[in-house]
Amino acid sequence: MRETVDRNAVIGRVHALFSGRGLTLSSAESCTGGLVSHYLTLLPGASVYFRGGLVTYSNNAKIRLLGISPSLIESHGAVSEEAARAMAEEARRLLQTDYAVATTGNLGPGTLEGKERGLVYCAVSGREAVSSKRMVLTGNREENREEAALLALLLLLDTAESG
Amino acid sequence: MRETVDRNAVIGRVHALFSGRGLTLSSAESCTGGLVSHYLTLLPGASVYFRGGLVTYSNNAKIRLLGISPSLIESHGAVSEEAARAMAEEARRLLQTDYAVATTGNLGPGTLEGKERGLVYCAVSGREAVSSKRMVLTGNREENREEAALLALLLLLDTAESG
Repeated sequence: MRETVDRNAVIGRVHALFSGRGLTLSSAESCTGGLVSHYLTLLPGASVYFRGGLVTYSNNAKIRLLGISPSLIESHGAVSEEAARAMAEEARRLLQTDYAVATTGNLGPGTLEGKERGLVYCAVSGREAVSSKRMVLTGNREENREEAALLALLLLLDTAESG
Repeated sequence: MRETVDRNAVIGRVHALFSGRGLTLSSAESCTGGLVSHYLTLLPGASVYFRGGLVTYSNNAKIRLLGISPSLIESHGAVSEEAARAMAEEARRLLQTDYAVATTGNLGPGTLEGKERGLVYCAVSGREAVSSKRMVLTGNREENREEAALLALLLLLDTAESG
């Protein structure tokens, strides 16, 4: 993946799509820790479509800031497809945007909640539906974070371009 | 600055200080767009002290998510020392942490709210007081963002180490 996905090309595609169509965007991040919103705001003019993001690194922040239900986290874990989807939906609701992108995962080292290292879920909430994706990344922590952020943006592009 | 401040050294110092002293931390970012929280969560174990962050890129997000008063933005602008200090105080309150770090500025290109390109304010809210700093950066947009994020972390270190 790292050899074939060019960061600047992905960021440029998001920028063209959202500014061109007058769509708005927000984010909710756990494992990527702010890197998705950093990427989304790299280009000047991003303020036209990017409203804001939440870095809900702790479960407490997921519950307090985003309004994720504690029972969802208890049942499925914070590293789960259900959590990623709920994070995207709540960010979209809170920031009143057309789309929201979310990430949660275990970038390593070691296991987390019994979830394997490199396991990442990303989700995109749009006006019509929520899409999500599961992946297992094999790099080191920083490589995994960059890859997870870019894969989340690719899911956003797939969803918004077909929406 | 870029030649003398080592990113990993700054991140390592924050990690040692906050994990060593059992302190908690949150962030509120405008111009750095998530890069501060990305830096704060690069090292494994950051979840022990970093609770979460808000990327309030739009004025609407500053008002809706952080609870910044619209009249503060109207009087001083979102790129102001007053806004930076209010962002740090509100993040600390919302996430119930010992410290919070905030950034707001105009990274360029062009002017913003009539504020010069490269003008950045960062602020740190701690248990005792709020400290803030004004700077004018001279790099390109991406260089300015990295420099602003690191200077915010240096202000955090100065404040927390003496606190």
